[in-house]
Amino acid sequence: MTLKVYVDRMSQPSRAVVLFCKLNRIDFVEIKVDLSKRQHLSHEFTEINPMQLVPAIVDGRFKLFESHAILIYLACVFPGVADHWYPADLFKRAKIQSVLDWHHTSLRRGAVMFVLNKALGPALGRPLNPELAAEGEKILTASLSKLESFWLKGSGKFLLGGNQPSIADISLVCELMQLEVMDDIDRNRVLSPHKKVLQWIEYTKDATSPHFDEVHQVIFKVKEKLKTLRSTEASLDKKVQSRM
Amino acid sequence: MTLKVYVDRMSQPSRAVVLFCKLNRIDFVEIKVDLSKRQHLSHEFTEINPMQLVPAIVDGRFKLFESHAILIYLACVFPGVADHWYPADLFKRAKIQSVLDWHHTSLRRGAVMFVLNKALGPALGRPLNPELAAEGEKILTASLSKLESFWLKGSGKFLLGGNQPSIADISLVCELMQLEVMDDIDRNRVLSPHKKVLQWIEYTKDATSPHFDEVHQVIFKVKEKLKTLRSTEASLDKKVQSRM
Repeated sequence: MTLKVYVDRMSQPSRAVVLFCKLNRIDFVEIKVDLSKRQHLSHEFTEINPMQLVPAIVDGRFKLFESHAILIYLACVFPGVADHWYPADLFKRAKIQSVLDWHHTSLRRGAVMFVLNKALGPALGRPLNPELAAEGEKILTASLSKLESFWLKGSGKFLLGGNQPSIADISLVCELMQLEVMDDIDRNRVLSPHKKVLQWIEYTKDATSPHFDEVHQVIFKVKEKLKTLRSTEASLDKKVQSRM
Repeated sequence: MTLKVYVDRMSQPSRAVVLFCKLNRIDFVEIKVDLSKRQHLSHEFTEINPMQLVPAIVDGRFKLFESHAILIYLACVFPGVADHWYPADLFKRAKIQSVLDWHHTSLRRGAVMFVLNKALGPALGRPLNPELAAEGEKILTASLSKLESFWLKGSGKFLLGGNQPSIADISLVCELMQLEVMDDIDRNRVLSPHKKVLQWIEYTKDATSPHFDEVHQVIFKVKEKLKTLRSTEASLDKKVQSRM
């Protein structure tokens, strides 16, 4: 009765769940639900998650979706998960819940809007939309400022001043890793003013090495692909212009 | 060291928190943060919640914001809160977490977009926006279908087939009560096709009576005010037209 994890590693909450399983040596089978092939809309997957979204898990007879709920569940039911991921202390736990809720309402909203409308949309069959991309960038920038000035204000390396990462660190860093698919100019414009955020991403990578890079390989590949595509488009544009 | 609860009852997550405290006889002081007077942006309130959003609580030295995090915290730390609100059983708890996450990503998104852009915006200094209202209605309608066909599919009166309400029932019903401020035609168009949803709202009202009506009084008052305003505007329009 091995845990089944339904994911597409191109989805940031999917990566957070896979990363957590690997870090905690949870025995699991990864089942790919290819979003670009619209497999999340299939009858088979709708039986697993009627909301047709990844990630989802099946643990014996128990089905669950929504990445935060999955991370909390895994941290609570699997033996051997270290306390720092989701502390038993109710006060610490409440703060982690607060970060995770804020992730939904702020950080994720801006990041998804920005990345989809500026870079990733066409790969998922959606056109780019400069207006929505600009709005997304605005929301994301405001969220990054709050992340820097509030959630990372402590002296520790991680969110809420912790010295070890929690499920919130994994969730939020995986979200921001989606920015890797952007043109470097766009990514740097948004991220580089937030030095503490950049440092925290590095701390989280280090603390979750080597699994972090392995789980994000697909993102780095897509980054290279899109880079090549952009430079080909740019050189074609130049040729067209030189002939006019 | 009484619990301090910072709310504006015009905000649906604020009402959920106040309702939960009253239902569970939690000793608390309600401190109004008037959103229409922009008190949430004040220096004093920013000290309580740097995100400048209600609800927020202060429990002794412990500060917390985000309504789901607050409800979970209160259910866990206050003695005498019945188990059904946030069951100790990890499987039930995981499912409640999943509903709460879905609330963030689906139901709330559509409901807020619809209500703000179709009715409530001007009261908060924002113009109405028919395009965004239509998009919000679409998202909300899709969410209500999922609520009806999935979350309420069990034989019980409440979400996830429960026979007693949980914090998820309170959160989601308070969200939908915001639709009371709409014109009845708009509200009924969206809600009336979902018979199970309507029945569940009634069950939740009954199970949380008389506190439910008390906490929602402000919404009913605003509903009457907007109704009068709309009928005055309509009769003015008629007069203008009859003189043309």
